[in-house]
Amino acid sequence: MYCVLMAGGVGSRFWPLSRAALPKQMLNLTGDRSMLQMTYARIRPLTSPQKILVVTNIDLKKQVREQLPELPEENIIAEPFGRNTAPCIGLAGAIILKRAQRDEIMVVLPADHLIEKEDQFRNTLQSAVQYAQKEKCLITIGIKPHYPETGYGYIQRGEKISRSLEKDVFRVKTFAEKPNRDTAERFLKSGDFLWNSGMFIWSVELIMNKFDQYQPEMAEGFRKIYEAIDTVKMYKEIKQVYSRMKSVSIDYAIMELAQKVCILEADFKWNDVGSWEAAYQIADKDEQSNALRTKDYCLIDAKNNYVYSKKKLVALGDVEDLVVVETDDALLICKKGQSQKVKNVVDSLRHKKLMEYL
Amino acid sequence: MYCVLMAGGVGSRFWPLSRAALPKQMLNLTGDRSMLQMTYARIRPLTSPQKILVVTNIDLKKQVREQLPELPEENIIAEPFGRNTAPCIGLAGAIILKRAQRDEIMVVLPADHLIEKEDQFRNTLQSAVQYAQKEKCLITIGIKPHYPETGYGYIQRGEKISRSLEKDVFRVKTFAEKPNRDTAERFLKSGDFLWNSGMFIWSVELIMNKFDQYQPEMAEGFRKIYEAIDTVKMYKEIKQVYSRMKSVSIDYAIMELAQKVCILEADFKWNDVGSWEAAYQIADKDEQSNALRTKDYCLIDAKNNYVYSKKKLVALGDVEDLVVVETDDALLICKKGQSQKVKNVVDSLRHKKLMEYL
Repeated sequence: MYCVLMAGGVGSRFWPLSRAALPKQMLNLTGDRSMLQMTYARIRPLTSPQKILVVTNIDLKKQVREQLPELPEENIIAEPFGRNTAPCIGLAGAIILKRAQRDEIMVVLPADHLIEKEDQFRNTLQSAVQYAQKEKCLITIGIKPHYPETGYGYIQRGEKISRSLEKDVFRVKTFAEKPNRDTAERFLKSGDFLWNSGMFIWSVELIMNKFDQYQPEMAEGFRKIYEAIDTVKMYKEIKQVYSRMKSVSIDYAIMELAQKVCILEADFKWNDVGSWEAAYQIADKDEQSNALRTKDYCLIDAKNNYVYSKKKLVALGDVEDLVVVETDDALLICKKGQSQKVKNVVDSLRHKKLMEYL
Repeated sequence: MYCVLMAGGVGSRFWPLSRAALPKQMLNLTGDRSMLQMTYARIRPLTSPQKILVVTNIDLKKQVREQLPELPEENIIAEPFGRNTAPCIGLAGAIILKRAQRDEIMVVLPADHLIEKEDQFRNTLQSAVQYAQKEKCLITIGIKPHYPETGYGYIQRGEKISRSLEKDVFRVKTFAEKPNRDTAERFLKSGDFLWNSGMFIWSVELIMNKFDQYQPEMAEGFRKIYEAIDTVKMYKEIKQVYSRMKSVSIDYAIMELAQKVCILEADFKWNDVGSWEAAYQIADKDEQSNALRTKDYCLIDAKNNYVYSKKKLVALGDVEDLVVVETDDALLICKKGQSQKVKNVVDSLRHKKLMEYL
């Protein structure tokens, strides 16, 4: 099986720590390794470095090489610019098609999610791979929700169609965008809505056929790229194709249109770490529920704060529910649970043309 | 007249900006000059540099010279350690006694207060100087309070005894410590309580006599120092005397004991800038009442905050009433109106032996 790690994000939700030159997947938000390195280590037991592709932005290629020295250089695929997940997956599919068999199984994973209980994760993937080989279908992974999160997309499962290695496989009924609070609570209560993890399993032949069927223009682009793969013209061709490629998610381009999409219900602990709030939730905390990643600290009546500052003493007095992030050139102080405000800050900086901070 | 600027403070209320090596009087809290420089410039039209003494801590002597290059070097008096205002004033008195006439008028001013309407300030001082020359009494300046501040000491005025250059002179009735809120409101309402500005005017002969009368042990120390002034033994003698000198304020050592102390009621705008809250009050503010002293800033739903950061972009999201102060090695975030918390932080750092931050 081939594993494709999507590492092209330029997310601004972790500003000021994340930057154009240092997006979330390259960050060390929780421990001693970046999200990308953790993702790589997590799937490494399932396949060889030769069959792991990392699709990233051209500007991040050098960093990816440094973070994953084991990975063959030709397996780091640089997109000239981000075009959302559908082009990324089609590009990776074309490469796998060229380098492997048509029935090769292709596992697609975001490189910036956090997963605990990694054995369960690998078991789930193996079940999905086996089912994809046998049944020739598009498979996605749904995470059983345990609270009404409004920051994730949801997938409603339909009839149970099979069981693969002790995992239940369901037909997908509908994809749902990020819900409001009421809807999220309804989803949770219904029991048949799962969090959309953005992980996919299918044979490379099948997904490329689906592009032909639902996105013929994109498929035409991928065919052009296919001809140039592993030649000197490869990146020139990718750039040309990408310049005309629409930016669209795989959910929107394929999954919501295709028939007979399957979903495996997963029970490993998953978090897409989409905000500072999420980083706080998964971090270790002190007795007053402060998550502290600082050189030194001094807290007087401070609780429920997330503080990141690598080089300074941070002193808090009588404050709660703050996100405090200090970098070499910027300082963010934001009420926790107001992640949208971080995006507003980034938009505002762009608007003010303070590009040096982005 | 001689002017004595008391610049020996090692205040921690402006931590992390103020440090042992950079106390409040050396800070530029409001504009382009330090508190000391502003104090010096304020009294400079009244006398010559030869008659201005700055009493400071030995560790700050070099900084004072740099900040006040006009001042003769021998007019910067270095205390080996801080011993509150009484020893500072006695030391300065001994020096003036040695260098000038016994009836020389001595004006004593804290070097870390903020004053607006400087002409009124100088007029008040001139009235006080004239009255001190004529009536041979101890004079202090009281500021007419315009709100019930709990961070200042108060002085209750008694009978009106005279008028000097259109200023009313009163007998002092009582000195009052920093009051609680209720008491401060009562003081304000009574109309006869004034803020204790810590400014004094008297002849050098008179104040040294008062030391003889009320603090004979201290007076004995000042006599020893007097003998050594402007000799090579001067600083050795000061150190010996100071090592046995008690730490006590001039209010406690003299003013509260002396008879016939006078007070001039002043109407210039005065602020002892005793906390970040006070720094906020006197600072320029934006439309959302944020006081911003930063390289760049980006505010989303932020109001009533005080932010100091010389080198960074500071982004605030959905926060209010915060004091945010960022220096090269520390970051303070404290609820405004909780100045005591800053002192708690400093105490805690001392307790944890994190002396590099003090």
